[in-house]
Amino acid sequence: MASVLRQAARLASSRCLTQLSAASSTSRLGASSYNFSPSSRNASTSSTIKVQLDSNTGVAIMMFQNPPVNSMSLDFMTEFVIAWDKLELDKSCRGIILTSALPNVFSAGLDIMDMYGTTPEHRTAFWKALQELWLKVYGSGKIVVAAINGASPAGGCLMALSCDYRIMIDNPKYKIGINETKLGIVAPFWFKDCLENTVGYRMSEMSVQYGILYNSAEALKIGLVDQLVPEDKLISTATETMIKWFAIPDYARQISKAMVRKATMDKMLAGREADITNFVTFTNKDSIQKSLGMYMEMLKGRKAK
Amino acid sequence: MASVLRQAARLASSRCLTQLSAASSTSRLGASSYNFSPSSRNASTSSTIKVQLDSNTGVAIMMFQNPPVNSMSLDFMTEFVIAWDKLELDKSCRGIILTSALPNVFSAGLDIMDMYGTTPEHRTAFWKALQELWLKVYGSGKIVVAAINGASPAGGCLMALSCDYRIMIDNPKYKIGINETKLGIVAPFWFKDCLENTVGYRMSEMSVQYGILYNSAEALKIGLVDQLVPEDKLISTATETMIKWFAIPDYARQISKAMVRKATMDKMLAGREADITNFVTFTNKDSIQKSLGMYMEMLKGRKAK
Amino acid sequence: MASVLRQAARLASSRCLTQLSAASSTSRLGASSYNFSPSSRNASTSSTIKVQLDSNTGVAIMMFQNPPVNSMSLDFMTEFVIAWDKLELDKSCRGIILTSALPNVFSAGLDIMDMYGTTPEHRTAFWKALQELWLKVYGSGKIVVAAINGASPAGGCLMALSCDYRIMIDNPKYKIGINETKLGIVAPFWFKDCLENTVGYRMSEMSVQYGILYNSAEALKIGLVDQLVPEDKLISTATETMIKWFAIPDYARQISKAMVRKATMDKMLAGREADITNFVTFTNKDSIQKSLGMYMEMLKGRKAK
Repeated sequence: MASVLRQAARLASSRCLTQLSAASSTSRLGASSYNFSPSSRNASTSSTIKVQLDSNTGVAIMMFQNPPVNSMSLDFMTEFVIAWDKLELDKSCRGIILTSALPNVFSAGLDIMDMYGTTPEHRTAFWKALQELWLKVYGSGKIVVAAINGASPAGGCLMALSCDYRIMIDNPKYKIGINETKLGIVAPFWFKDCLENTVGYRMSEMSVQYGILYNSAEALKIGLVDQLVPEDKLISTATETMIKWFAIPDYARQISKAMVRKATMDKMLAGREADITNFVTFTNKDSIQKSLGMYMEMLKGRKAK
Repeated sequence: MASVLRQAARLASSRCLTQLSAASSTSRLGASSYNFSPSSRNASTSSTIKVQLDSNTGVAIMMFQNPPVNSMSLDFMTEFVIAWDKLELDKSCRGIILTSALPNVFSAGLDIMDMYGTTPEHRTAFWKALQELWLKVYGSGKIVVAAINGASPAGGCLMALSCDYRIMIDNPKYKIGINETKLGIVAPFWFKDCLENTVGYRMSEMSVQYGILYNSAEALKIGLVDQLVPEDKLISTATETMIKWFAIPDYARQISKAMVRKATMDKMLAGREADITNFVTFTNKDSIQKSLGMYMEMLKGRKAK
Repeated sequence: MASVLRQAARLASSRCLTQLSAASSTSRLGASSYNFSPSSRNASTSSTIKVQLDSNTGVAIMMFQNPPVNSMSLDFMTEFVIAWDKLELDKSCRGIILTSALPNVFSAGLDIMDMYGTTPEHRTAFWKALQELWLKVYGSGKIVVAAINGASPAGGCLMALSCDYRIMIDNPKYKIGINETKLGIVAPFWFKDCLENTVGYRMSEMSVQYGILYNSAEALKIGLVDQLVPEDKLISTATETMIKWFAIPDYARQISKAMVRKATMDKMLAGREADITNFVTFTNKDSIQKSLGMYMEMLKGRKAK
């Protein structure tokens, strides 16, 4: 536990609700290390989302660039959805790779600053943005692959779980999981449903209750990720995997995907309003605000040392 | 992909909607190689279904004999159900082994000729026959074992999935799976449900979307089949397994089986009419008819070479 | 089968409906072999349930002591629930370990004497007590760990399945499973649901139909238990595991646990009355009473030899 807190402290300015595994300063992975095809037609960049689409292959890469740890703030999620919608409408895009432009972290999950000391109205907007992001990614007709190039706790894990396939860098320092309970908060039912669909009921039951984070090898073993690759093969493997699946007729694949995901999607849609109310009410509690405050103080305090 | 198409071409006259793995001409497996008990009381043969019942053991063997690849035509399925009903009513029969009387193929799945250029009425009858076959096998109080002695894609895989236990010949050339999307069509929800029950949600999600065919070792690994045996042990192993389970009191086993399968059965029954409409409408589309036509031309063309 | 019956015969006075694995007379495991913390504040003992609570750690140990095989009689289950309620109300208790104070057996399951020759009213009370026991354990906000120190068939397996974690002695002579069909009876749907949640649909389907008992290594392999330990490490491992999880904030863990278990719990509650009627009607049948009677005679007859 102590070492986890020390790791979190190194990311004190992250304002993120989730613990991160060690962020090594020796890593050189960043957006600049990707060699994108020179044929790429489109490259668009918002402040936090970078998109590069290779219209020859149909593969788009969407990179998170919200330093220091790609926390999912309301702004980040809003920009994500705008960029996503643009790709959805682009017929030349058949698949989307989600990855991080930052070193050592895929995404550290929901931004604590949107939950701590904010108005119910703000938190309502925040939670709606999260729901919308998930509905877009999980329900997409495109092939979506997560190229997990760093820590991916809580909301970061959810983004990965919403994809069709998860490839992770083979490095034990990167952890992934639904670890909310460790911080005194609760993942909503659809986080749990996504995890359960991926690793099965029993593993999900354990994982959600005890807030377990898995390193890359453990994540592969339980099926939380599908494949491990060396750091320098991450994007190429994701691209090749996607292109291989482009051989499947889109129409049949999309109907099949929707059929498989229908029950989980319908359940979330049916519980959408209650889920918002639940989050806003929960984070309105003094005890929860106090916990969030203490967590932020801890991060600041650790950083100061 | 090319090699898959080459394999399919060798079976050009099959008129089957599903790809088959390599059909080696060196295989000698056929009905004539089975040594049935001399005590068998009943042996009945329709044009496409052969049944041998050993009333001493209670084990019936139902063999598919619809050359060249046991395609599931309306006629085949009608004869299947007639033979099945006869066994269901026979008190001396406690279990049924499904297998193929043809070399290299268990069943190549639904017959394309019943879908291509046929009337909506014909396709309605065709789909009802498939539903009925499944309801009979999946809901049977008998113990049903699939002895998979060859390729078993799409509808062939569904027949295997409807059984209580799947034993497959240990030979990498035989493939099994729900591969519909590769052909531009979509497996109905109850194919998916059967697959999901057998291999779990995550493996089913991948498998259905990408139309994955597994060789025998892969199928064992993911649980799509339960056991691999050498070719010459297939029927004896199926028979011995069944006889072992005859020790369980039928009444308790049947109630337990019905309880386990109730949700999947109820869901199919509730969606039965919509499923027929869905199939008939889908196959009415010009684009789908065109795909089916092209597929048939391809098979013919490949054969001609 | 014969050896199973011989084993059962050795436990002839057990009156239990379930088969037990060999009960070796060389085992020395018993309540007296546990070294409880000297700081234990509370120790309460009913005739069949012994409880020791260490208020320093928050860990309670509830031991079954209903010789010879901890059969779940109406009396046993009534005392279980009374002891359970007391622990639930005790704020100093954060987790409960279920184990047996008897050698070689965790629990042999439901007591046949409460089913054979009893009135419908008695059987109604009996089944209600079983439902209540399960609802309490499965729905508990405490962390509940099964320390399985012997055979655990049928109802014994259900008790283990209701916990959050299962640790079993690494000894092939101890068997665990839902083996009701082997005795001509049927496990209710919620036994099946618990098993399915733990080992997955396919393994549960096989297991429930064929009444399969697994030895400790097999149980670990399919996920029916989570961990195997040597006999002398059982209670210490259970305690350490529980204490490790006490680091998770109770409130968040409890909400998460309730969320994960909601569907299974709701289904049972919705079918509760029908489940009672079903059991009482089923055990009212002459054929079932006859089976139970023969089973008891067999146990007595074997013992007499």
